[in-house]
Amino acid sequence: MDYRSSGVDIDAGHDVVRRIRALARETRTPGVLSDLGSFGGLFAIDPSGRDDTVLVASADGVGTKLKVAFLARRHDTVGEDLVNHCVNDILVQGATPLFFLDYLATGRLAPEVAVAVVEGIARGCRANGCALLGGETAEMPGFYADGEYDLAGFIVGRVARSAVIDGRAIAPGDVFVGLSSSGLHTNGYSLARKIAFETLGCSVDTFVDELGTTVGEALLAPHRSYLPALRPLLERRSSAPGGGPLLKGLAHVTGGGITDNLPRILPPGVGARIDTRAWQVPPIFKWLGAGGHVPHDDMYRTFNMGIGMIAACTAADVPVLLGALEADGARVIGEAEAGEPGVGYVR
Amino acid sequence: MDYRSSGVDIDAGHDVVRRIRALARETRTPGVLSDLGSFGGLFAIDPSGRDDTVLVASADGVGTKLKVAFLARRHDTVGEDLVNHCVNDILVQGATPLFFLDYLATGRLAPEVAVAVVEGIARGCRANGCALLGGETAEMPGFYADGEYDLAGFIVGRVARSAVIDGRAIAPGDVFVGLSSSGLHTNGYSLARKIAFETLGCSVDTFVDELGTTVGEALLAPHRSYLPALRPLLERRSSAPGGGPLLKGLAHVTGGGITDNLPRILPPGVGARIDTRAWQVPPIFKWLGAGGHVPHDDMYRTFNMGIGMIAACTAADVPVLLGALEADGARVIGEAEAGEPGVGYVR
Repeated sequence: MDYRSSGVDIDAGHDVVRRIRALARETRTPGVLSDLGSFGGLFAIDPSGRDDTVLVASADGVGTKLKVAFLARRHDTVGEDLVNHCVNDILVQGATPLFFLDYLATGRLAPEVAVAVVEGIARGCRANGCALLGGETAEMPGFYADGEYDLAGFIVGRVARSAVIDGRAIAPGDVFVGLSSSGLHTNGYSLARKIAFETLGCSVDTFVDELGTTVGEALLAPHRSYLPALRPLLERRSSAPGGGPLLKGLAHVTGGGITDNLPRILPPGVGARIDTRAWQVPPIFKWLGAGGHVPHDDMYRTFNMGIGMIAACTAADVPVLLGALEADGARVIGEAEAGEPGVGYVR
Repeated sequence: MDYRSSGVDIDAGHDVVRRIRALARETRTPGVLSDLGSFGGLFAIDPSGRDDTVLVASADGVGTKLKVAFLARRHDTVGEDLVNHCVNDILVQGATPLFFLDYLATGRLAPEVAVAVVEGIARGCRANGCALLGGETAEMPGFYADGEYDLAGFIVGRVARSAVIDGRAIAPGDVFVGLSSSGLHTNGYSLARKIAFETLGCSVDTFVDELGTTVGEALLAPHRSYLPALRPLLERRSSAPGGGPLLKGLAHVTGGGITDNLPRILPPGVGARIDTRAWQVPPIFKWLGAGGHVPHDDMYRTFNMGIGMIAACTAADVPVLLGALEADGARVIGEAEAGEPGVGYVR
């Protein structure tokens, strides 16, 4: 079973993204600093550069993790997933959050459910020092199945122009440090649900010994925010001769896994070698991979496999980075090498 | 037939909004200038006030107007609806747009449909001088019916703190000037679809003499942006003794109609009297009202009835305002009076 057979066609998605990017390019104004396809979009408040504030914005959804929440009748965690996902998407460009808005669309408005969802959002916002500035609660009769909803989030953060992290300086010999994920985060749920609920015939309440918990609990573990771990490092400089920022690049491992996300920050002529023996793949991924007989390559292009964020630094800074992130499950997982932007795995 | 019977319960929605507002309040940070429930959320880039840039952000959806687009297989206008709706929502606080992000969620990704939707978004962005900075295209198998999608948008604009329009200065005797809508804009579609497609048994292709076009064309008329009309007036000062801004308040007539939206900008102790004889209600509203036997009050609390934006000014400035907005179908539609914030209609 691979990701395409579960209904998500990543390649068709990439084609649409290419065409959308061309449309977006026609709307550029002087403030726009980034092309679509970065994790977050960059916009200079003052294009003349006198004020060096850059706004970084991102839009995201929770995806079909929502279906697991519906099955488990648990609505107070998906908001936290959404906020943390958005926070990470702008953090990778060096930005810290200013404010967040949500879009919650339902068939009939179930007040308790709507409030539980926003409770999760508000908890996530508070934990990240981000204001919940507004949102839209849309009742769309005949649109969503009873008891179902969709949820999207929009975040705006800021970073000084000189402190934007973009991976441009990553060079062969640089090191990739991986930070632990807390579970699937918000990606791979179409495949995970198919394996758990169809192939393996589980329900959300099925207790799985290998997981030490129920399927529902394991799949609903909230997406982790890497802001508390990485914020103290955003302004740090490299100890290497020549200086530069300590964090040369950050990749948020979302849909497409390490395979598709790490190359998004690699400059031309630089590839990545990732040693999958460098960390313990958490039980949830092993259980899903075995249950669905999912090929290795598909696993690493669908799930985060236990690594939710990857930081790139020069080799000399590795001890600094590991020291600062010791409590966050950081470890060296690979290095940059000359070659096409892409990921080669050592197994 | 009223709006509740078509599946949308505005009062239950108001209760949820109250509870959500309380949750949002707990997330406030020093930059937040507005309470949830304004049209757009206000955030000061520099809470100390040295830099007086205020960001205004809003999230919105297209609502069940999308269902009409599905029926008509016409996907290149809903994006324009969305952008213009968002532009108007921040314009009412004096802000001009900086950038926009979209969230497009589908079951299976139909590349041509996704691209058509974004074409509409890009056209809307270009027309408003707003950059399409990013977005999320989510494939959520088993979530949306085949060929269906949901679409949400997020806009960020800017206004100088001293130029924020908030209605606070509206006083008895001030005048409300209404600007024409181009149709239903993006509100009232649950009721409109029920009347058109169930009660009256029309299809999108039914030609209706009174409308001079098909039901589909009439219902899909894009939401109008009021930015071109109002932008030149945003910085204008009143000619009245004591000065102040020319535009004392702006209300975007969206879900809830004039009845619910005009009070959002009225200060305590000020109500509105609106003379419905002051403008010609466009044929589409007459046709829907007659077809559904909808009571007068429900019509004005569901549809914009031909007035998509209301500007408040002091009586002395009315000639200036009408002169500047002559080409935009502006006319005096009522005035502010002492009383509870609410709208009384003269018929």
